[in-house]
Amino acid sequence: MKLITFQSGDDIAAGFIDGEDAVVCIEGESARRAVLDVISGGQSAVSDWAKSGTRRVPLSDICLMAPVPEPRRDVFCVGKNYYAHAAEFHSSGFDSSAKETVPSHPVIFTKATTSVCGPGAVVRASLDPTNSVDYEGELGVVIGKTCFQVTREQAYDHVFGYVTINDVTSRELQKDHNQWVIGKGVDTFCPMGPWIATADEVGDVTELELVTRINGEERQRAKVADLIFDIPTLIETMSRTMTLLPGDIIATGTPVGVGIGFKPPKYLKAGDVMQVEITGLGTLENTIG
Amino acid sequence: MKLITFQSGDDIAAGFIDGEDAVVCIEGESARRAVLDVISGGQSAVSDWAKSGTRRVPLSDICLMAPVPEPRRDVFCVGKNYYAHAAEFHSSGFDSSAKETVPSHPVIFTKATTSVCGPGAVVRASLDPTNSVDYEGELGVVIGKTCFQVTREQAYDHVFGYVTINDVTSRELQKDHNQWVIGKGVDTFCPMGPWIATADEVGDVTELELVTRINGEERQRAKVADLIFDIPTLIETMSRTMTLLPGDIIATGTPVGVGIGFKPPKYLKAGDVMQVEITGLGTLENTIG
Repeated sequence: MKLITFQSGDDIAAGFIDGEDAVVCIEGESARRAVLDVISGGQSAVSDWAKSGTRRVPLSDICLMAPVPEPRRDVFCVGKNYYAHAAEFHSSGFDSSAKETVPSHPVIFTKATTSVCGPGAVVRASLDPTNSVDYEGELGVVIGKTCFQVTREQAYDHVFGYVTINDVTSRELQKDHNQWVIGKGVDTFCPMGPWIATADEVGDVTELELVTRINGEERQRAKVADLIFDIPTLIETMSRTMTLLPGDIIATGTPVGVGIGFKPPKYLKAGDVMQVEITGLGTLENTIG
Repeated sequence: MKLITFQSGDDIAAGFIDGEDAVVCIEGESARRAVLDVISGGQSAVSDWAKSGTRRVPLSDICLMAPVPEPRRDVFCVGKNYYAHAAEFHSSGFDSSAKETVPSHPVIFTKATTSVCGPGAVVRASLDPTNSVDYEGELGVVIGKTCFQVTREQAYDHVFGYVTINDVTSRELQKDHNQWVIGKGVDTFCPMGPWIATADEVGDVTELELVTRINGEERQRAKVADLIFDIPTLIETMSRTMTLLPGDIIATGTPVGVGIGFKPPKYLKAGDVMQVEITGLGTLENTIG
């Protein structure tokens, strides 16, 4: 199932995609939390959700939001998690946080809940006084169950589904502040969507391919299988000391091809169109404003 | 007013402190979010809260929890924000994140919501496989209003109140993972409380003094006036690009005297008692388990 939250006229609604239609399951302000509640409810909630559709609306008539517009806490992210990107970032001069090119342990940071926006939203690069805004196409893992000390072998049992994320970053703020909350957490710097696909719909996630295009030009292409720390390792590592919650999102890292990989860097400018496409997870398109 | 959340028998309640009593304003599961709702409601909600007390319970009969047991998102924290501590941390060998001793820009990171615990709670140092758990006594600022691009001059208008925090840290995990979410976000590694004091009750926050004791031995003593980046600067810097929300908590950094400042480091061990005391904000006491 592909779960969505959207605006239909002035109203907010949530439901799922069926063919060319959005099936509406809930409408009104409570729809903001509805997908989060379905995630928390697990498989039975998904089944109930499938039966609860009240009406259909053509996708062309609605405006998709982030599938979880207001996450219950900040979005977990992984830095330097593809080999070629780790090398390009390390040699860019912007990696203030490590002496080593390839990390020995997963590099985990967070993006503020207030940075989340949906497909189609304008990413407000103008908020960055340093004019060094860059894209990072990423696969997001959505945790489905409260979990603690999960082993690699059990890890996928705790995944609800997957979503496309663009970990938009101010490179100068990322460097200047050493820890990345400021450079990564700017309002609108976490586009997410267009939908969360349930794990059963995705199948073997390592086979998914991610492509990022800027103004139609391909910049990033990688398979999830190429992650340095794979999804089971991330869940095992994080849950070893931290309880993970239903609805937690882990953006797994970006492959080679970001703007600072070029010399001189290719920063984003007003009017640029970013597209992050992942097999089965749709295309997340946002314009720079 | 001193706002509290607490357990009374098997029930959860929230209210405020009056002399030697807890005044109960709300009871039941919804009490978990009640202090957050008062913060969001601002001055009128505080006035209503003061009138809504239903009964009194002696403080000696209740078990205080974190005043906001389930924050709406992760706790913002500031690294290396007192000069002498910046020097001791930089020279300790555990500061993987910066070349400079004194940061040029505020170093902002987060602690996971699931790391929050209350006064009296056992801090589960045994969860850290590296046995390198350290204390960090800190003043926490509680944001009272949704705000964006707040100037230094306006900053205190957006502060609801203050709370004592212990930013417990695994030093080896902090170093190994480069970004600090893993080393700082271990379950129970964010003791908070015993209460949130409203800004009007605190008065001039820069006059507050923080003292940390381990097993009764004084380890840290500093005035809030000694912060490198003061509270108005932190709010101005963070809100320049990020919307801050009512209930957001900013732990402002720890002074000199942490365990890794000693040679060899004095790590915490089972049975150790940590006390962080701040003028007017009470004593936050937790035992290491």
